[in-house]
Amino acid sequence: MIAAPSGKGDKHVARYASFLLPDGKSSFGRIEGDSLVELATAATPSLKAALTERRLATLGDGARHALADIVLLPVIPDPAKILCVGLNYAEHVKETGREQKAHPAIFTRYADSLVAEGQPMVKPTATTRFDYEGELAVIIGKPCHKVGAADAMDHVAGFACFNDGSARDWQRHNIQFTPGKTFPGTGGFGPAMVTADEIDDLGSQRVQTRLNGELVQDQPVSDMIWDIPTVIEYISAFTPLNPGDVIATGTPGGVGDKRTPPLYMQAGDKVEVSIGTIGTLANRIIDEQ
Amino acid sequence: MIAAPSGKGDKHVARYASFLLPDGKSSFGRIEGDSLVELATAATPSLKAALTERRLATLGDGARHALADIVLLPVIPDPAKILCVGLNYAEHVKETGREQKAHPAIFTRYADSLVAEGQPMVKPTATTRFDYEGELAVIIGKPCHKVGAADAMDHVAGFACFNDGSARDWQRHNIQFTPGKTFPGTGGFGPAMVTADEIDDLGSQRVQTRLNGELVQDQPVSDMIWDIPTVIEYISAFTPLNPGDVIATGTPGGVGDKRTPPLYMQAGDKVEVSIGTIGTLANRIIDEQ
Repeated sequence: MIAAPSGKGDKHVARYASFLLPDGKSSFGRIEGDSLVELATAATPSLKAALTERRLATLGDGARHALADIVLLPVIPDPAKILCVGLNYAEHVKETGREQKAHPAIFTRYADSLVAEGQPMVKPTATTRFDYEGELAVIIGKPCHKVGAADAMDHVAGFACFNDGSARDWQRHNIQFTPGKTFPGTGGFGPAMVTADEIDDLGSQRVQTRLNGELVQDQPVSDMIWDIPTVIEYISAFTPLNPGDVIATGTPGGVGDKRTPPLYMQAGDKVEVSIGTIGTLANRIIDEQ
Repeated sequence: MIAAPSGKGDKHVARYASFLLPDGKSSFGRIEGDSLVELATAATPSLKAALTERRLATLGDGARHALADIVLLPVIPDPAKILCVGLNYAEHVKETGREQKAHPAIFTRYADSLVAEGQPMVKPTATTRFDYEGELAVIIGKPCHKVGAADAMDHVAGFACFNDGSARDWQRHNIQFTPGKTFPGTGGFGPAMVTADEIDDLGSQRVQTRLNGELVQDQPVSDMIWDIPTVIEYISAFTPLNPGDVIATGTPGGVGDKRTPPLYMQAGDKVEVSIGTIGTLANRIIDEQ
């Protein structure tokens, strides 16, 4: 679902999306209402390239496509790094029964696990506990290494919705989360990037997850234990970040695995992650083929 | 240190290394004694490309360089995936005070954390607990996804030494290891890839780590809790593996952090990881600049 659900109208919020052209070529552009204005050029073929070259604001308009005619890709289809923050909302820390630490929990996901808005999220055959995690994704716009929190937001290109789909059994096979966090087709990332300068009230935006229409997660970004500048300072202290890298900033309380009875995603379910002005990421669940 | 330390003579063991030419161009080739025979071509510029295209055995010999004249790169300078097995030797599980689980612990490291044989390993300014972890690295040669253990070794190109240099304080900031496991310059990977068909006694090869000449880790590969086919089966069940991907298969007992008193690496120290026929990876420690 692309249309802006609330706040600033779509005309005033710049949304950038990656997509497949009808001929199967990947491209990117700017969403305007029900259409997408292509921005890719031979020299700047991707949103990541546009960020890297700092050309996003100056690329000329190309062909206009009806959104109905194109297939969206993950906002950045091939981030070099996707870092995920675990345990960043107190309600979620509490429901997991874990103690709050002095630093965030960071793990990673691979780009080949991402799926776009409107594409199916894939429940792996190997799991019986496939869970949602609605999250705010931060997309890095400028290289940063050991950046301080005060300057961190200068390195953010924008935001999108993320669904850190988790195979809870595999996540807990041992003490590291990786096996449950990067199955192919489990990471929803979309629908589009809203540039950081469009969001003047980030803290009050609510991260809301709906499963088959039922609201199952709902907390404002301001509930994060470590806010976005602090997370960027922490991560960039141990690994350099570059344009197109993604930080999934953690999930609110309400995950399915900690409900009584548990609420897992099954083939046919519809899961949506909405974050105010940033938009809604909607995916159907299918079984792995 | 490139020369084969024992077992089959160097003439009989094919060793492939990535390196920088004097003009700064990256390349790769086959080590023969004190020289390296270049194998890169315009169409196959890297060891990863040679694996991907299955051309390693058929590339013609190019220029011969004295090893003294070139700078080695990490065996694969840019693996798309580096997966690390934690807690894969019972002695190490015991020294960490953790319980043994039914599945291996898997975490990841980024390629920009790798350093080559002979290059300095970098002690991050941010850590006071910089530790060694000598490991056997497995280099994937053929794509595999959901491969069974019985067929897993068919997908292995070869082996090398790995030093999973760890900032123990950052590793334990929270429950996920990532922050302590991917600082730039902390992951030793070298000196060269020995092809799997050259090693007919993998289990009896000993993973030995020396710090300033003192033997601090020493266990045979056969001491692994999850052997290499089982590790590949497990990892490929949740993420596809491709040529050039690396699995660091876990460290034996004897890490510095669990000694009394602790033994951390400091600037000026020399750390070596030796694995029988596979060779020795030697690095000096420097402080981060």
